[in-house]
Amino acid sequence: MINSIPSLISFPMNGGESPYSYANNSCFQRRGTDSAKILLHEEITNKLELKQICSSSNVFNIVDMGCSVGPNSYIAVQNIIEPIVSNYQSQGLPSLEFQVFFNDHVANDFGTLFKSLPCDKNYFAAAVPGTFYNRLFPKASMHFMHSSYALQWLSMVPNEVEDKNSPSWNKGKILYDSKEVEKVYAAQFDKDMGSFLNARAEEIVCGGFMAILLPSIPTGADPSKCTITAIFHLLGSSLLDFANMGLLDEAEVDSFNLPQYFASPAELEAVIERNGRFKVERIEQWVQPIPQASKSFVEQFASCMRSGNEGITGGHFGSELMDDLFNHYTKKLVDSGLFSDSSYVPLCDMFFFLRRIDDNI
Amino acid sequence: MINSIPSLISFPMNGGESPYSYANNSCFQRRGTDSAKILLHEEITNKLELKQICSSSNVFNIVDMGCSVGPNSYIAVQNIIEPIVSNYQSQGLPSLEFQVFFNDHVANDFGTLFKSLPCDKNYFAAAVPGTFYNRLFPKASMHFMHSSYALQWLSMVPNEVEDKNSPSWNKGKILYDSKEVEKVYAAQFDKDMGSFLNARAEEIVCGGFMAILLPSIPTGADPSKCTITAIFHLLGSSLLDFANMGLLDEAEVDSFNLPQYFASPAELEAVIERNGRFKVERIEQWVQPIPQASKSFVEQFASCMRSGNEGITGGHFGSELMDDLFNHYTKKLVDSGLFSDSSYVPLCDMFFFLRRIDDNI
Repeated sequence: MINSIPSLISFPMNGGESPYSYANNSCFQRRGTDSAKILLHEEITNKLELKQICSSSNVFNIVDMGCSVGPNSYIAVQNIIEPIVSNYQSQGLPSLEFQVFFNDHVANDFGTLFKSLPCDKNYFAAAVPGTFYNRLFPKASMHFMHSSYALQWLSMVPNEVEDKNSPSWNKGKILYDSKEVEKVYAAQFDKDMGSFLNARAEEIVCGGFMAILLPSIPTGADPSKCTITAIFHLLGSSLLDFANMGLLDEAEVDSFNLPQYFASPAELEAVIERNGRFKVERIEQWVQPIPQASKSFVEQFASCMRSGNEGITGGHFGSELMDDLFNHYTKKLVDSGLFSDSSYVPLCDMFFFLRRIDDNI
Repeated sequence: MINSIPSLISFPMNGGESPYSYANNSCFQRRGTDSAKILLHEEITNKLELKQICSSSNVFNIVDMGCSVGPNSYIAVQNIIEPIVSNYQSQGLPSLEFQVFFNDHVANDFGTLFKSLPCDKNYFAAAVPGTFYNRLFPKASMHFMHSSYALQWLSMVPNEVEDKNSPSWNKGKILYDSKEVEKVYAAQFDKDMGSFLNARAEEIVCGGFMAILLPSIPTGADPSKCTITAIFHLLGSSLLDFANMGLLDEAEVDSFNLPQYFASPAELEAVIERNGRFKVERIEQWVQPIPQASKSFVEQFASCMRSGNEGITGGHFGSELMDDLFNHYTKKLVDSGLFSDSSYVPLCDMFFFLRRIDDNI
């Protein structure tokens, strides 16, 4: 299942247009979106039956969950709309109108999102605030649901990780790096994804589609030997360096953990099958090709990490520390040679294309 | 048509939670919303035929156009939902879900709107950015459209008003105060309202409703003898005072005009009848009773004026002048005794309840 469709990773984003904003750090995400474009086009062209799912009106409702502030969300939406329009025209059907809902947390920078909506968009735009682990839309009101680089964010850090008396206490780390800690993170992912699927199953029409793009690890890989977790462990060790320099308290590092989990295709497929309300139409996973692990590439990657993780990290340690922390982190990431180290599993994306099936079948 | 339902006036709003924000200056608007509640309840209870307008799904879509930042928009929405739920239950119909779209300009403070959404709301919330003089939603997708204290804002200042060679040049004034200027403002209102009705007629289902609440003047009244225009002329003369004091240039005042027009019920009714796509179910107009035109009341009213007009005024004259300007205006408004002057027509609200009719009838 590992193909060579080019793509790179991203995370939830800094708002506005500052040097570390998503607006200035989105080239990696753009490549991920471009890779998924081909897959979306194939699946939509081959499988979408418009007459069936838009039977009662000429409105096609699309949602992008975890949209951040654009522009990649707009591109993803366009990648969905284009094959639908072609499909529709080839079926000789009357005019169709699109309504697109951009969803993210209440704290997302929706102001920037609204201001940068494409002038030539061919849809009506709306924003929906709130976590996608809850219901967001009326029953059977959506035709196509999409989420890109968002579902790796868990609804919460598993409680055990911050409990000194638990075998899963994650002392000195900010992401899972042992079997005991990984186990509770995996359980949280399993639970969250179950909530997500149940909510979406209510909202999407029977026969409607859902596309999910996620940073991931290959099935069976050891997370501690994967680049995707190693880049976070380097951020954790940057924090420990700061504790050793007396710039922050070690207990503060112990009590900080990132609510992110990078699943394998087998793990995600298992939750979907247990949920039982979606049919898996397609699974793809590919290595994100790194053109050249040059210093400037790694620095760009570190900026991308900052745009995604500064908010949550600064919220815990104080925003005034973030310039120094991410400068230190950037240097460590460059010095690590991680992206050229063949003993680590490279960064991988996975793409799932699901169809909502009838509950009575 | 003039009844005595209590209400007071409001305007588009300052965002955030500063001393002059809408959040801190919304008691007048709240009373207007409360007055309309009775009318909404009666009209919905007596006239809504749910089986007809929600024939194909159990979703009821509501939009509030010109919502600003809450909380009055939430109250208005609740005033619409409550009688629908009662109506629905009494008809013994299965469960209904509500989706509410909050619309305002792109520059509206949607962040504050999202953060203050009621925790116990019984609907799915979405925001739609953009001017309501254009299309905002897919065809026949809305069941109930609402707008409160928003449609007095025109899409633009009529060109003639700022043209020195036009007989409608509005030298030294910021709102219409002569027949020549009034004429071009009235024409702009007529044109804008026509665009609004055409857009809404596309978006609302046949049999769906639209409720409009607006500050207004009685039919046949002379605008220059109405409190609603006089409060703006005092703001204009405050600006001229500043010009005389050398704090700003008189030409700056000449080139500043507010895009607001206060129509009479007959004027609004005429546009609706000419449009021909809505049936007028009910028109009400009432005087806004002023409990006691005390100094503190007038100061509160001046703050309300500031929360609605500071953005556009500061945009023209510079925000650094606004504290002094609105302090000066407040003093002039207090000294004018306007709210106790019986030679002026008091502030009036008007309420229109419309039904979307079949284009083929």
